Amino acid sequence: MATSPPGSSAGSGQQGAHRGAPHPSPRHPRLDPLADRYAARTHGMKSSEIRALFSVVSRPEVVSLAGGMPAVTALPLDAVGSMIGDLVSGMGAQTLQYGSGQGDPRLRERICDVMALEGIHDASASEVVVTVGSQQGLDLVTRVFVDPGDVILAEAPSYVGALGVFQSAEARVRHVAMDDDGLIPEALEEALLDCRAAGDRVKFLYTVPNFHNPAGVTLTEPRREAIIALAEKYDLLVIEDNPYGLLGFEHEPLRALRARNSERVIYLGSFSKTFSPGLRVGWVLAPLAVREKLVLATEAQVLCPPSLTQYAVARYLDTQPWREQIKIFTELYRERRDACLESLEALMPAGTTWTRPDGGFYVWLKLPHGLDAKLMQPRAVNALVAYVPGIGFYADGSGQEYMRLSYCYPEPDQIREGVRRLARVIEAELDLHSTFDAVDTGTFRAVRPDADGRFSGSGTIVGPANSNAYEDGR
Amino acid sequence: MATSPPGSSAGSGQQGAHRGAPHPSPRHPRLDPLADRYAARTHGMKSSEIRALFSVVSRPEVVSLAGGMPAVTALPLDAVGSMIGDLVSGMGAQTLQYGSGQGDPRLRERICDVMALEGIHDASASEVVVTVGSQQGLDLVTRVFVDPGDVILAEAPSYVGALGVFQSAEARVRHVAMDDDGLIPEALEEALLDCRAAGDRVKFLYTVPNFHNPAGVTLTEPRREAIIALAEKYDLLVIEDNPYGLLGFEHEPLRALRARNSERVIYLGSFSKTFSPGLRVGWVLAPLAVREKLVLATEAQVLCPPSLTQYAVARYLDTQPWREQIKIFTELYRERRDACLESLEALMPAGTTWTRPDGGFYVWLKLPHGLDAKLMQPRAVNALVAYVPGIGFYADGSGQEYMRLSYCYPEPDQIREGVRRLARVIEAELDLHSTFDAVDTGTFRAVRPDADGRFSGSGTIVGPANSNAYEDGR
Repeated sequence: MATSPPGSSAGSGQQGAHRGAPHPSPRHPRLDPLADRYAARTHGMKSSEIRALFSVVSRPEVVSLAGGMPAVTALPLDAVGSMIGDLVSGMGAQTLQYGSGQGDPRLRERICDVMALEGIHDASASEVVVTVGSQQGLDLVTRVFVDPGDVILAEAPSYVGALGVFQSAEARVRHVAMDDDGLIPEALEEALLDCRAAGDRVKFLYTVPNFHNPAGVTLTEPRREAIIALAEKYDLLVIEDNPYGLLGFEHEPLRALRARNSERVIYLGSFSKTFSPGLRVGWVLAPLAVREKLVLATEAQVLCPPSLTQYAVARYLDTQPWREQIKIFTELYRERRDACLESLEALMPAGTTWTRPDGGFYVWLKLPHGLDAKLMQPRAVNALVAYVPGIGFYADGSGQEYMRLSYCYPEPDQIREGVRRLARVIEAELDLHSTFDAVDTGTFRAVRPDADGRFSGSGTIVGPANSNAYEDGR
Repeated sequence: MATSPPGSSAGSGQQGAHRGAPHPSPRHPRLDPLADRYAARTHGMKSSEIRALFSVVSRPEVVSLAGGMPAVTALPLDAVGSMIGDLVSGMGAQTLQYGSGQGDPRLRERICDVMALEGIHDASASEVVVTVGSQQGLDLVTRVFVDPGDVILAEAPSYVGALGVFQSAEARVRHVAMDDDGLIPEALEEALLDCRAAGDRVKFLYTVPNFHNPAGVTLTEPRREAIIALAEKYDLLVIEDNPYGLLGFEHEPLRALRARNSERVIYLGSFSKTFSPGLRVGWVLAPLAVREKLVLATEAQVLCPPSLTQYAVARYLDTQPWREQIKIFTELYRERRDACLESLEALMPAGTTWTRPDGGFYVWLKLPHGLDAKLMQPRAVNALVAYVPGIGFYADGSGQEYMRLSYCYPEPDQIREGVRRLARVIEAELDLHSTFDAVDTGTFRAVRPDADGRFSGSGTIVGPANSNAYEDGR
């Protein structure tokens, strides 16, 4: 079976309120006199697993394998600083002034140059909308397409920030299984057929094909072709989110999905990982009719993106050795990836498995049978190591046995120390678990065996299959 | 009568689709293969009157009294440039990195200092959310509070960018009349009673109390007290949008509505007019429970505001003479306001009336009886002068006889030349009108006399009452 056994809710989890469905009552109406007047979408909003960690990971004694912060200090800061200073001193009338909602035309042209590196040669600047990070791009696309109750297909696991957008849109998310080769086309087709049979309207598939966040895997060439073929067959719109595509360690970038189909794929890009996330410059590439809607939506949302940051990126692309800088970043992340994988190999107890990314920022780790990453988290923080529990990356409450490890930000020695601490915590959990073996302590959830090799609460990733944890959809 | 005569739709115009209402068919489904899958909110989106002018006003031979661009070249660009350059060179690890969704704590503290200038002394940095311009602040507040079909009260006329947000939220806008003293409390109370009688849920009042965009008027001290009293009496939430409050020509700022009530007023602020719009730094001040919702909403929308622009504003407030700079801006705008009002007084034909702003950017002009600012626009552009037709500032299709003139950006001589050109265009229209007097040419709309002194399609502003134009709600 691809995504969900019959009768299971794991593969078709829903989030967000349906139109007309009763909303949960506010918990403390006396504490919030406005509690009775929030919009329906607001009742479903909750903090992400990542934000809950912010206060913890900022403590210097904690090795954080949690955040996804790029290594911006590897940039030539003096050169970038004087470049940006000159932009303000010399072009203040433009860089400090309002711009157009669609974004600076010069930047949009350079964005087309960047996309050509992943095989997109037919994009025109008129089809590009500059956004406040690709997060805003995804939010705009969702606002333009999604009504409450609509279904969005998304990988299992999926980027936590995307799930937040979909929740805010009161969409229902149906997860589609992945494995080491990325999204599984057969699982996608099954999901499409299920939705069709149920009369559910699928607005789009959301996918991160390269160096997936959090799974760390990359969609293979044959699967890219298969997914585009399915998009044609089922009239499916695909949102291709690609912040990491140029950060590969092993080979040239694979051709983007958008390079294979310009009508059914909307492409999201970002300079957060190739230059700087603090500038918040991303973009959407969309067919002209959609682009027009996106511009109207962004004008209602922010009027226009910041001019200064757009000019900074355009000038950076015009005057600085940005391709060489990407190589510098890539080498740095490769070294950190190696430190992470070597430590995991050397130190993790049996039964622990993980993905082996060949680019990007993340390793997706599965705990030994019966362990729960969220419940283990306080003990990990006590041991001065932080990660992101897997459940944040599922809309359906599954993923308890997974965690995301980020190797992008700490130095290699810190990564090794962090993995060492984590291994000790897992070993201690296993000891505790064996002591209470087969006893339901309230700490461990009901598990179900499965012979499959998938992530989505339905199998292992690298090692042999062992267990699955399910929880009721919420 | 306050806002709308019985049977008229002018005072209770609606925009956006109702839940369950049929959506207009896409016009060219063959041109947009995705036309059948947009969200309901998307079908209601349309270009603003201002955007339609962008291509026109960028021509150098046109005197634009249309845009609301601040005079950023009056800033000390060299000092600001080297300040921002140093921020990147010296603090790149912070200024180029992700920040928190709520915004930089240091900046939020300085924002509290700024708000103290308008009498808000009890604000804490924890209640402030930094936004991508105050436009995003308004969008976040709307997302948090407004479901499709909810009613928002807004002045007539109202800021066009706010109407775009409300339209995108599928809200219904009910206008409340203003006069030279700002929003009319009696009209507000009548609107509240009407909504209560109709069973409509009023989510909030949106108001720009200082140097209103587009009306140019300021809410008087007694009316501020009256509106706060009404908010208490009717359990009304007030969104106070205050981008221009520190740009007064005549006297110290009046105390903000938020300074009078911290529980029922959510305050929106911006550095776009006191420093730079190209940085897109604004903020929301809200009670803690609401602030928490706003942070979740902004994280779903943009993750976090740009770090560089936030650091730039905080450093500017810390190290540059920003209060003196506001005085420089104010003197410059006062000179331009004077040029505008003196030219209007000297050149405009009888029957033309206008407001006399004592701060901010805008004059709101009413054309002589029977003229239509939107229909006149092509002839004005031919005469090389641009303005914004009034209908963009009404959700209900009224306002044909009004236009907004901005004096913020052109030099005084340009303003005088622009007003001269505009006066000639109006005179030519009057000649044409007298030729076809009493003949319905399709150019002039049915008008209705009224003895009132209000803006909202219900009276004159400065001169004696003469006419009103109504159009069916759309």
